[in-house]
Amino acid sequence: MEDINEYIPECWYNMQADLPDYKCQFINPFTMKEAGKNDLKMIFPEPLIEQEISKERFIKIPSEVLDLYRMWRPTPLNRADRLEKTLGTPAKIFYKYEGTSPAGSHKLNTAIPQAYFNKISGINTLSTETGAGQWGSALAFACKSLNMQCKVFMVKISFNQKPYRRIFIKLFDGTVISSPSMETEAGREILKNYPDSNGSLGIAISEAVEVAAKDKNINYSLGSVLNHVLLHQTVIGLEAKRQLAELDVYPDEVFACCGGGSNFGGIAFPFIADKLKGQELRAIAVEPAACPTLTKGVYTYDYGDVAKLTPIMKMYTLGHNFIPPAIHAGGLRYHGVSPLLSYLYSQGLMEATSVHQSEVYKAGKLFAETEGIIPAPESAHAIAAVINEAIRCREEKDPKNILFCLSGHGYFDMAFYDNEINGGLKDFEYPEELIKKSLNDLPKV
Amino acid sequence: MEDINEYIPECWYNMQADLPDYKCQFINPFTMKEAGKNDLKMIFPEPLIEQEISKERFIKIPSEVLDLYRMWRPTPLNRADRLEKTLGTPAKIFYKYEGTSPAGSHKLNTAIPQAYFNKISGINTLSTETGAGQWGSALAFACKSLNMQCKVFMVKISFNQKPYRRIFIKLFDGTVISSPSMETEAGREILKNYPDSNGSLGIAISEAVEVAAKDKNINYSLGSVLNHVLLHQTVIGLEAKRQLAELDVYPDEVFACCGGGSNFGGIAFPFIADKLKGQELRAIAVEPAACPTLTKGVYTYDYGDVAKLTPIMKMYTLGHNFIPPAIHAGGLRYHGVSPLLSYLYSQGLMEATSVHQSEVYKAGKLFAETEGIIPAPESAHAIAAVINEAIRCREEKDPKNILFCLSGHGYFDMAFYDNEINGGLKDFEYPEELIKKSLNDLPKV
Repeated sequence: MEDINEYIPECWYNMQADLPDYKCQFINPFTMKEAGKNDLKMIFPEPLIEQEISKERFIKIPSEVLDLYRMWRPTPLNRADRLEKTLGTPAKIFYKYEGTSPAGSHKLNTAIPQAYFNKISGINTLSTETGAGQWGSALAFACKSLNMQCKVFMVKISFNQKPYRRIFIKLFDGTVISSPSMETEAGREILKNYPDSNGSLGIAISEAVEVAAKDKNINYSLGSVLNHVLLHQTVIGLEAKRQLAELDVYPDEVFACCGGGSNFGGIAFPFIADKLKGQELRAIAVEPAACPTLTKGVYTYDYGDVAKLTPIMKMYTLGHNFIPPAIHAGGLRYHGVSPLLSYLYSQGLMEATSVHQSEVYKAGKLFAETEGIIPAPESAHAIAAVINEAIRCREEKDPKNILFCLSGHGYFDMAFYDNEINGGLKDFEYPEELIKKSLNDLPKV
Repeated sequence: MEDINEYIPECWYNMQADLPDYKCQFINPFTMKEAGKNDLKMIFPEPLIEQEISKERFIKIPSEVLDLYRMWRPTPLNRADRLEKTLGTPAKIFYKYEGTSPAGSHKLNTAIPQAYFNKISGINTLSTETGAGQWGSALAFACKSLNMQCKVFMVKISFNQKPYRRIFIKLFDGTVISSPSMETEAGREILKNYPDSNGSLGIAISEAVEVAAKDKNINYSLGSVLNHVLLHQTVIGLEAKRQLAELDVYPDEVFACCGGGSNFGGIAFPFIADKLKGQELRAIAVEPAACPTLTKGVYTYDYGDVAKLTPIMKMYTLGHNFIPPAIHAGGLRYHGVSPLLSYLYSQGLMEATSVHQSEVYKAGKLFAETEGIIPAPESAHAIAAVINEAIRCREEKDPKNILFCLSGHGYFDMAFYDNEINGGLKDFEYPEELIKKSLNDLPKV
């Protein structure tokens, strides 16, 4: 039998294979007709397009990718026993810690295969956007590892708040541009209308896509939302399942924070696969109350970006014009969510909940004190929801097995934990008026 | 047989036991007479004083300390195979990675037992100094874990350059004061003469010791130099030895960076114990060219701090008045070095070398690119020396087994890696005149 401390899955799990009624569909934003593979080829390499639409249940991980995964995988599965004890809960809390990756988060799980499949398709430069900087860091590291170039449009508020992420990207020879920028038409348009814009993932995506679309030597790379991204992230859930089995544990509940949905999909899909076969399981996505895509959005066709350059997808959305309040969890400030995950949610196969950033701060601090890891603000959303659930378990004497994904460390996000700067964290109420307004501008499909 | 992935030593190794001619000696700075246990009781608890002078070979680690060690220990022993490949060296390079600790460095190995032994001695508040912030972070975390208070005097240059460390300490409810400060006589004295002082470890120690000496409810805690500190750090070397044995490897050479000497002693002592019994081994301390204590200092009696408040010890020193240039590796900016280590060096049982910070930067970047871990600037000193040795091995076709201690990660030290801020790192030449001057003020013992 193989050593559990060395186990890495040999294949990614493709959730689409088990959802016969799910339709992977892109609408060309210019023709408003269904987009085919050719529309996607402008910015993506063929192997990733194949993965995007594949109905194969398991897709082999190339050995070159496995070799790079081995730099940090398998990641640890820990029991949060000191947190449990502090909460006095009968629940068992397990977490899969993705912060041990060279980029400090789960994002590298997809950055490496994306860079790899682009490289073998003859592309040597990738452009992308980044919110908190986690995705940009991961892609810069992946490109460096594969001897490629990387250009990162970084959401302005993170660019200013998180200098360490910027330095990280540059250390690995990536180029970082504050977004909105004057380098693209999309950026110039925003700056004309909102010169003080803090930026958003939607805007930065527009810029990165524009750069790729205009240069045939550059491809675009997305850190979440798309099927192939979530596919790559299933290494998290597959490893966790195997590690839990070693302990004779199957989770009753799986939690992860949710922005575009890749960390949630990554840990939850391999368990939802069992749920489809009758296994009892709750899978719960945790989002910020200030950007409540699943809990307050609508399930409809929308653009992936502000400038309407990306294909239109059917998903839960707050409207592509929605620019979320400047919460610290930059990685969760996105108006939409993965179409695959949106489908699961619409079918009642998963749940969603939202938390405020002041409780996220408290959860992150308590976790750091008890487990010794300072979580990224994004990941601390999951912790906040897990703590709430563990307290419910205590009150109802319900010894659940809880699994969550600790998607990244917060060592580059210490400003979030700086009470002197923050003076107590501001909670943004559900921005109802803003969302209503932005939902008025949905595409007519 | 126990699982190597769970193995933590049950005892610390006491190097003094194997050095019958080494004399643990402190001179009272006020009476100039040899200090006894009572002189030390003003600032240290009895169990640590016993450890400081003990000749027992193995000292049992209390189960409460082991429980806390288990939060992150054992730490990984990795083979730097991608670095080896890039260098084209026949040498095998292994590193013990201490950056997985909650405080991000090896410092927590001693912070926890120091806090513990103070607590069981009835002390509830510890004062200390910190250079780069690693020791302050570790002690703050240890105090929080044991429900104690912590007061940290942080060297001014780090206080300003490293806000994330400051936030870290505060997150764990520690108090941080920029040193030199107006809170102590020692601080006020320095500020009177050098109002623009960048601070130094020597000054910050004076402040922290003063606070402890004046309040019987506060003890002082030191992050390096003393015997009991190096004792606690031997968990690193003991674990590494066991992990290497599992791979059938014994190192030919052991490297670690060296400021006060605790990380070096921690990894090297258990191997030097074998050397005393005839094992062939080179143990090499790596220091900054800007603060070359072992390579350019003298072996004599000196104070541990600027204000002449600490006991006088026999050690390699650049003079207690020496204030090193403002290099990024704040943890290595100390005028002296552990007396125990100084003794070993004087006996030819270990070696020392020095490196400039521009080569330290290059080594850190190359390590990050190949091994996926951004090293702390201090730890990157060891890497620079290891790379030089690995290149020698390549040129001389010499397949040595090299072990080094990667004492901490650099995620809080990204300013070191920011070329835009640094504009290429400045190398400080060996500050000959400065050292000469400060060596004129040695105590007459």
